[in-house]
Amino acid sequence: MTDSAAAGNGAARIGMIGYGAMGKAHAYAYSAVGVIRSLPSAPRLTVVSGRNAEAVAAASVGLGFESWTTDWREVVERPDVDIIDICSPPGTHAEVISAAAVNGKAILCEKPLAVSLAEAETALAVVRASRVLNAICFNYRFLPAVALMRQLVAEGEVGEVLLWRGSWLSDEFLDPAIDFDWRFDCEMGGSTIADLGCHLVDLAEWMVGPIEEVCAQSSTFTTERADPTGGGQLAVGVDEASSALIRFASGAAGVFEVARTCARRPCDFTIEVNGTRGTLVFDYSRLNELRLGRGADEERLYGMRTIRAEHKDHPYARSWWAIGQGVGYGASFVNLIGELLSTWPNGPWLPSLEVGLRVQRVCDAMERSAVEHGWVGLA
Amino acid sequence: MTDSAAAGNGAARIGMIGYGAMGKAHAYAYSAVGVIRSLPSAPRLTVVSGRNAEAVAAASVGLGFESWTTDWREVVERPDVDIIDICSPPGTHAEVISAAAVNGKAILCEKPLAVSLAEAETALAVVRASRVLNAICFNYRFLPAVALMRQLVAEGEVGEVLLWRGSWLSDEFLDPAIDFDWRFDCEMGGSTIADLGCHLVDLAEWMVGPIEEVCAQSSTFTTERADPTGGGQLAVGVDEASSALIRFASGAAGVFEVARTCARRPCDFTIEVNGTRGTLVFDYSRLNELRLGRGADEERLYGMRTIRAEHKDHPYARSWWAIGQGVGYGASFVNLIGELLSTWPNGPWLPSLEVGLRVQRVCDAMERSAVEHGWVGLA
Amino acid sequence: MTDSAAAGNGAARIGMIGYGAMGKAHAYAYSAVGVIRSLPSAPRLTVVSGRNAEAVAAASVGLGFESWTTDWREVVERPDVDIIDICSPPGTHAEVISAAAVNGKAILCEKPLAVSLAEAETALAVVRASRVLNAICFNYRFLPAVALMRQLVAEGEVGEVLLWRGSWLSDEFLDPAIDFDWRFDCEMGGSTIADLGCHLVDLAEWMVGPIEEVCAQSSTFTTERADPTGGGQLAVGVDEASSALIRFASGAAGVFEVARTCARRPCDFTIEVNGTRGTLVFDYSRLNELRLGRGADEERLYGMRTIRAEHKDHPYARSWWAIGQGVGYGASFVNLIGELLSTWPNGPWLPSLEVGLRVQRVCDAMERSAVEHGWVGLA
Amino acid sequence: MTDSAAAGNGAARIGMIGYGAMGKAHAYAYSAVGVIRSLPSAPRLTVVSGRNAEAVAAASVGLGFESWTTDWREVVERPDVDIIDICSPPGTHAEVISAAAVNGKAILCEKPLAVSLAEAETALAVVRASRVLNAICFNYRFLPAVALMRQLVAEGEVGEVLLWRGSWLSDEFLDPAIDFDWRFDCEMGGSTIADLGCHLVDLAEWMVGPIEEVCAQSSTFTTERADPTGGGQLAVGVDEASSALIRFASGAAGVFEVARTCARRPCDFTIEVNGTRGTLVFDYSRLNELRLGRGADEERLYGMRTIRAEHKDHPYARSWWAIGQGVGYGASFVNLIGELLSTWPNGPWLPSLEVGLRVQRVCDAMERSAVEHGWVGLA
Repeated sequence: MTDSAAAGNGAARIGMIGYGAMGKAHAYAYSAVGVIRSLPSAPRLTVVSGRNAEAVAAASVGLGFESWTTDWREVVERPDVDIIDICSPPGTHAEVISAAAVNGKAILCEKPLAVSLAEAETALAVVRASRVLNAICFNYRFLPAVALMRQLVAEGEVGEVLLWRGSWLSDEFLDPAIDFDWRFDCEMGGSTIADLGCHLVDLAEWMVGPIEEVCAQSSTFTTERADPTGGGQLAVGVDEASSALIRFASGAAGVFEVARTCARRPCDFTIEVNGTRGTLVFDYSRLNELRLGRGADEERLYGMRTIRAEHKDHPYARSWWAIGQGVGYGASFVNLIGELLSTWPNGPWLPSLEVGLRVQRVCDAMERSAVEHGWVGLA
Repeated sequence: MTDSAAAGNGAARIGMIGYGAMGKAHAYAYSAVGVIRSLPSAPRLTVVSGRNAEAVAAASVGLGFESWTTDWREVVERPDVDIIDICSPPGTHAEVISAAAVNGKAILCEKPLAVSLAEAETALAVVRASRVLNAICFNYRFLPAVALMRQLVAEGEVGEVLLWRGSWLSDEFLDPAIDFDWRFDCEMGGSTIADLGCHLVDLAEWMVGPIEEVCAQSSTFTTERADPTGGGQLAVGVDEASSALIRFASGAAGVFEVARTCARRPCDFTIEVNGTRGTLVFDYSRLNELRLGRGADEERLYGMRTIRAEHKDHPYARSWWAIGQGVGYGASFVNLIGELLSTWPNGPWLPSLEVGLRVQRVCDAMERSAVEHGWVGLA
Repeated sequence: MTDSAAAGNGAARIGMIGYGAMGKAHAYAYSAVGVIRSLPSAPRLTVVSGRNAEAVAAASVGLGFESWTTDWREVVERPDVDIIDICSPPGTHAEVISAAAVNGKAILCEKPLAVSLAEAETALAVVRASRVLNAICFNYRFLPAVALMRQLVAEGEVGEVLLWRGSWLSDEFLDPAIDFDWRFDCEMGGSTIADLGCHLVDLAEWMVGPIEEVCAQSSTFTTERADPTGGGQLAVGVDEASSALIRFASGAAGVFEVARTCARRPCDFTIEVNGTRGTLVFDYSRLNELRLGRGADEERLYGMRTIRAEHKDHPYARSWWAIGQGVGYGASFVNLIGELLSTWPNGPWLPSLEVGLRVQRVCDAMERSAVEHGWVGLA
Repeated sequence: MTDSAAAGNGAARIGMIGYGAMGKAHAYAYSAVGVIRSLPSAPRLTVVSGRNAEAVAAASVGLGFESWTTDWREVVERPDVDIIDICSPPGTHAEVISAAAVNGKAILCEKPLAVSLAEAETALAVVRASRVLNAICFNYRFLPAVALMRQLVAEGEVGEVLLWRGSWLSDEFLDPAIDFDWRFDCEMGGSTIADLGCHLVDLAEWMVGPIEEVCAQSSTFTTERADPTGGGQLAVGVDEASSALIRFASGAAGVFEVARTCARRPCDFTIEVNGTRGTLVFDYSRLNELRLGRGADEERLYGMRTIRAEHKDHPYARSWWAIGQGVGYGASFVNLIGELLSTWPNGPWLPSLEVGLRVQRVCDAMERSAVEHGWVGLA
């Protein structure tokens, strides 16, 4: 883990854009992944950028970076940086992606890919041309129980999927006294459909296949919020709660909901699939468990099994603790980054930014559907 | 509880139409309600009707009726019958209601009110003209935890309701090998939107107020089923799974789902409201509990309370057991019938058939929306 | 259900001693059992006795009895009474049992059998000599999930039982401001070990076999309570909380706990067995469920199944509702009384008063162990 | 995080003895703690020792150590090591502690302190004389929900504690086909009372105060296991399951259980306290939650609150993620080591090895009680 070791064996050198909550989660993952995955060399945290010099300097120390800058372009251009990790607000993603790709850097980008479909498509065009390794941070795919859920679906454990439902409930926007900030500005934070919903859409398509048509509704209950800089009121530009009906290409039907106005729901996300042979249910508030109802099980044992998704045969489980001990949110990042680093510098990396674009397309269709008040198809 | 006692104090005399699963639940309630509510006289089970003489004779003994008949018209015309309790399939309801009303009988009708809105409206016109006491069996209103939920909403415990969600998941139609029966015939059993969904719609409007607009989708995965009488295949006429977006007149938004193709989900119904001040969650698989998240609670105790909805101050709780002991499904019928009998013969009775008609109207809008593939408004 | 019908087909005629909470539960069961079990004739509630004329007269109407008396001896002597159902405080049980047996009446006695082992033995001697049908009301055996648990143990589903644990937590004695009443008088209410613990001991021996040795501790935190009649303080004569180590004859080990000073625990009773092949867990707060962990299940599905103990193949389930609907506390009494009446007047009846005596013997050993501060063996 | 930085700001230099499951957990914590706690410098993993050269060399790379050795004495004598972290089997602890203390090193020792009370006392005598900083790894104290539980007890939230119960159920010894290894050798692994139970005893005394008297029973169901080296059978020297009654100096009563023969129980540990004003329940299978039943809460909200123990006002929570995201087992080590390092090199460190000795004393009393078949007092 010394400099020379890192230099000697090609440890990946990380340049991070942004250092907020997501930056901390990623920095944690880079720090822990060496031990958890027994990597021959841990990644090297080369540089972090942010707009405020004092804050980024402090973050650089706290997150363990070797250096910092207030100019993100410097990061994407540094020759001693291999991977650009984008943890800044959604409204900045597309531009950084393009610049990183042009500079031949590998890219790991936080979700959502962008705040509009047009922006996302433009960025992807640059990425495709550059052929750099790239990934979008749909980290919940890498929770052991979610990965197991997808594995069981793929193996046919529940048969053909008929129904899917996913919801994400939080209370972060409930209080009207919360001041306006970038999360309420659709140009910078993106819609709630995209910000929270992109995870649900990604998991839905990952498990059930392409979505063909959607019909959504959106609500914003607090339409103006105080401007902490000025003193007046600013119009809230994002949906606080949205829901959608979904039709999959396979014929399966789905129900989707995201909401940030649910009191005492901190971050409760659940997904369920019902197939011809069984049911699988994941509830994030019990993130180390997966429930399975097998239609073919003995009638007398009618009910569901609660799988402790930490068995050594489960995805990622061998890297972690003895069964029953449990992992947390951070493990999703360690597992994702562990997968990327274990193939570095060759790849492939999954889920790619193309996946992010596809998810953006579905979220965009939902946004349009809510405005147009009717079903919207996806090509 | 002897004949003379019943005659002397005006015990209600019941004539029941049908004797299936619902008939048993109602007969249980009539038997138990005297003890549970300390009524001065228990109701009298005068007569039950059914099409098959042998079966109805046996049911009459098993359910404790004094007599039986194969002609339901005889029941609605008997002078020694006060209340017509309609437990036959949905397709028969409207005709029986009309006949009972014409004969001046009080009416308790199982849900849904009818299998079409037109039928329901016709029946209600007769009921209105007759001015008989009448009620629809939305029994889940009478579960202590559900009644408490509504009470708390009405008292403003959660503030103004912003979001509502309700779902009802079962597996009763999952197996394609189940033969065709009346439940798959929309003319007799009604849609799944109406059959299961009417409870959800009723609870939604009871707690959140009128629904203004809906957008639904429906699926039928097994489109034909074996005809057990003939030998061929019969077309399934009902939806197996439906979901809908809801817009309430208040501005609240809702998500609705009913499905009968969810493996190892026997009858799992949940409803949740999120208001400006709190959240309430009811999950039928824990029917004696209600969860409450109060936005104003001490931050350090962030989370939800699990209310054991059996406290003596809770609806119906004093009639039952000590707290912690729990009631079951049957209690919903005992409580409903207890409320009706406690006001007998004066009324008022709630929820009335008018409520049933309103719910039918919403279900009809959902059915049309699924066909028309778009939003449908309710006047 | 008319008089003539009852007389004609030998409906059991009940004389009940006491009309408190247990009296109501039993009266409910007698009322409901006819419908639930499709009995050819429901039992007849002939007479109820109590000390206070006004109160018993009111209870007689509320519970549906044909008559009442303030003299319990009259009840046990009435020729038109078949079964004496003893629902009075524990301190009265032994005397009533003896008198009922002498009069040749069948006996159903609430638990615990008596407030001392000596009393219990004396009563049993009379019962044995009289050869009357007799049963003790260990009603929790008759909860579907508990009955299923025992059935699975008996079938070897969990192999040889190695460990057993049972606890019963309530808060009924927590508040020191509760006045003294008969429950705090050991001569009338019996110990908490006996009153709550008898259920746990019965279930333990029913599932795991005879207990060979116990070591207990007891606590009384509020040692005096206000005398509501006098004005002074009375010494509390019962344990408020007790726990015990248990050694079964089979070599299995157990842990037992009863406590009435657990805030916000209304009546939370749990039992678990761990065997060589599996684990079974019952938690009364989810009384329609049973959890099963099978050691031989696929490793990848590691965890427990939550059995919805309402499947038609489960004990008592066919008598009740569709799966997923759930029963409550009352069902335990309906099922117990249904079993007794279904064999009436021939028997056998289970669990008999002999079982009650055996349980009393174990509870007595625990009580002595707590006093003697050491292990106490059972012959 | 470079060498020069570490040297410059006094980063703690770690010498680890052993590299098994506990070694990995500690190495993870050292790697992650810098980011999680925003430390100015992360600790430095200087050297790790193990008996097998090949294995320790591999572990050194995987865990991120700078060097390795097969001689643990070399570690405790190296001048460039500040803290000796003991992760080897319990039977080795006492000797390593003494050597580390003699060499003036700070000590972090995995639990239990030793495999016998005599050994533990000898080691402590050396530690006391040396005055080195020292801590025992009772890591579960550092789970946010457990720390919050203790904080609430200390603040009087539940009043005076009356009852305590703790149990730890696993299945790791259930299968008789598991070969003999050091865990079955009491001289090396220590008893189950000590190995699992030490956590429960520590938490009990931390929350409720000193234990005064215990009465225990122990079972070993598989008394011999195959010798993987020889081919014969070896006698199992440890208890597989033990339980105990506890009497606290305060007058509170307790029930304790540890068992390693519970099928499909991976590591299910629960603790509960019932006080004069409330109840607190922690269940490790939901490690981010704490349940609180407040006796003074509105009667109509009777029940318990489920506190999401991740609020920013909760212990350690600010270091981690947004509420609702959840931490895992690893966080207990990060938090513990974070506390130690945040006071490095001054201290104080808690819980100290003195706490470990006290816990050893209680476990020793339980072990003797099981052998002597009666209550054993603690001075």
